[in-house]
Amino acid sequence: MNQGRPFDVLSDARGKDVTLQLKNGTVITGKLLSFDIHLNLVLEEAKEYKTGIETGEEIGTTIVRGDTIVLVKGL
Amino acid sequence: MNQGRPFDVLSDARGKDVTLQLKNGTVITGKLLSFDIHLNLVLEEAKEYKTGIETGEEIGTTIVRGDTIVLVKGL
Amino acid sequence: MNQGRPFDVLSDARGKDVTLQLKNGTVITGKLLSFDIHLNLVLEEAKEYKTGIETGEEIGTTIVRGDTIVLVKGL
Amino acid sequence: MNQGRPFDVLSDARGKDVTLQLKNGTVITGKLLSFDIHLNLVLEEAKEYKTGIETGEEIGTTIVRGDTIVLVKGL
Amino acid sequence: MNQGRPFDVLSDARGKDVTLQLKNGTVITGKLLSFDIHLNLVLEEAKEYKTGIETGEEIGTTIVRGDTIVLVKGL
Amino acid sequence: MNQGRPFDVLSDARGKDVTLQLKNGTVITGKLLSFDIHLNLVLEEAKEYKTGIETGEEIGTTIVRGDTIVLVKGL
Amino acid sequence: MNQGRPFDVLSDARGKDVTLQLKNGTVITGKLLSFDIHLNLVLEEAKEYKTGIETGEEIGTTIVRGDTIVLVKGL
Repeated sequence: MNQGRPFDVLSDARGKDVTLQLKNGTVITGKLLSFDIHLNLVLEEAKEYKTGIETGEEIGTTIVRGDTIVLVKGL
Repeated sequence: MNQGRPFDVLSDARGKDVTLQLKNGTVITGKLLSFDIHLNLVLEEAKEYKTGIETGEEIGTTIVRGDTIVLVKGL
Repeated sequence: MNQGRPFDVLSDARGKDVTLQLKNGTVITGKLLSFDIHLNLVLEEAKEYKTGIETGEEIGTTIVRGDTIVLVKGL
Repeated sequence: MNQGRPFDVLSDARGKDVTLQLKNGTVITGKLLSFDIHLNLVLEEAKEYKTGIETGEEIGTTIVRGDTIVLVKGL
Repeated sequence: MNQGRPFDVLSDARGKDVTLQLKNGTVITGKLLSFDIHLNLVLEEAKEYKTGIETGEEIGTTIVRGDTIVLVKGL
Repeated sequence: MNQGRPFDVLSDARGKDVTLQLKNGTVITGKLLSFDIHLNLVLEEAKEYKTGIETGEEIGTTIVRGDTIVLVKGL
Repeated sequence: MNQGRPFDVLSDARGKDVTLQLKNGTVITGKLLSFDIHLNLVLEEAKEYKTGIETGEEIGTTIVRGDTIVLVKGL
């Protein structure tokens, strides 16, 4: 078992659904495929929820730049 | 087959149509020609959709700076 | 006993409840599981308090990017 | 022939007219003289179009800092 | 005696009360416990004064990220 | 003769009058004395034009941080 | 005599009164004690002038983070 460091926690979340909050207020959900050391993430079957809108738009496989992310929850 | 890391996913998307969301709200579509480690992208036959405008402006071959990108979708 | 440097203080706070203020005004509380050199933090049983809202939303295990953090209090 | 990477594409554009969009909304046109690894560009016979203004102001030979650029089009 | 360089001045201030101005307008006071090369600071018995509010909130031992600091005064 | 790269162009401009546009909208004019690799510039007999104000304020010898500069024109 | 590079100019200004413009609009004056390679400055007998306010507040010996500085004038 890993030591629970941030990248270990992300590593354990691969294949699971996660939720991202971005700096521009957008929320992205999807299945975590992979990430790199910049916290760039690849999500599959992603949905994008713009600020104040309930319904998510399906955006498919998506790369999210790490420097736009505030937090990753649902881990 | 690659391991699905962010740059692998981008690599597989070369020659395909992708959609970028930029930090200033602009959306750019185009065929991905290439990229570098800063996530600077080159798109061919690109179109630019400013915030709240439906019709894209054709902007030809375009380099988009990586640090202005929020996400790359349609992969 | 450590020398009280910022990362020593964080290290001593593992397993305890901490409160984060983020640059976007959000407050996050939770039990500190781990962190890395970028000040990326992992909180367990986290709660998120959006600006001006009293009630926290439970967001579970959460990674908060270090570069969105203003301060960590309650240490 | 080069491989179409972002800096190769810029390299091929030397001596040609390019159009820059800056983060502050300004558009700059001019003939690309040179660039460096930070994407700092030198344009000759440059014109500056402030947000919402049709007529460009002639600003001569100009260095544009790379970190203010959103995209380079017309390549 | 040290040469008065910024980190020397901070070093001399350990154990004393300092006042921080943050980029978001908040003012933090407290006793300087420690700092690191990123100018991350640890304050003890810290108080937080939000923009335009006279009364400080006691926030205990607090880590303030260096990149949110405008200036450190009262040295 | 140099190759026209951004720093070569700046180097040739030493001793000449240049005009800077800053990210906060301010315009600075002055005689370029020197610069460094961060594009920090020293101007002599500088004048500062705040946004929307025609008359420049004389500010003497001035160091302008490179990361606040949008462009350098009049080269 | 030095070559007038930005850090040389700062070095010559030690012990003299300088004026800083910060990114948040604040103006700081004081006697330059020291600086480091990040352009972090230490001022003695500093005064702080908030945007649009004529009277400076005396803030004593102060460290100003380099990345909040737009320009240093009065050199």
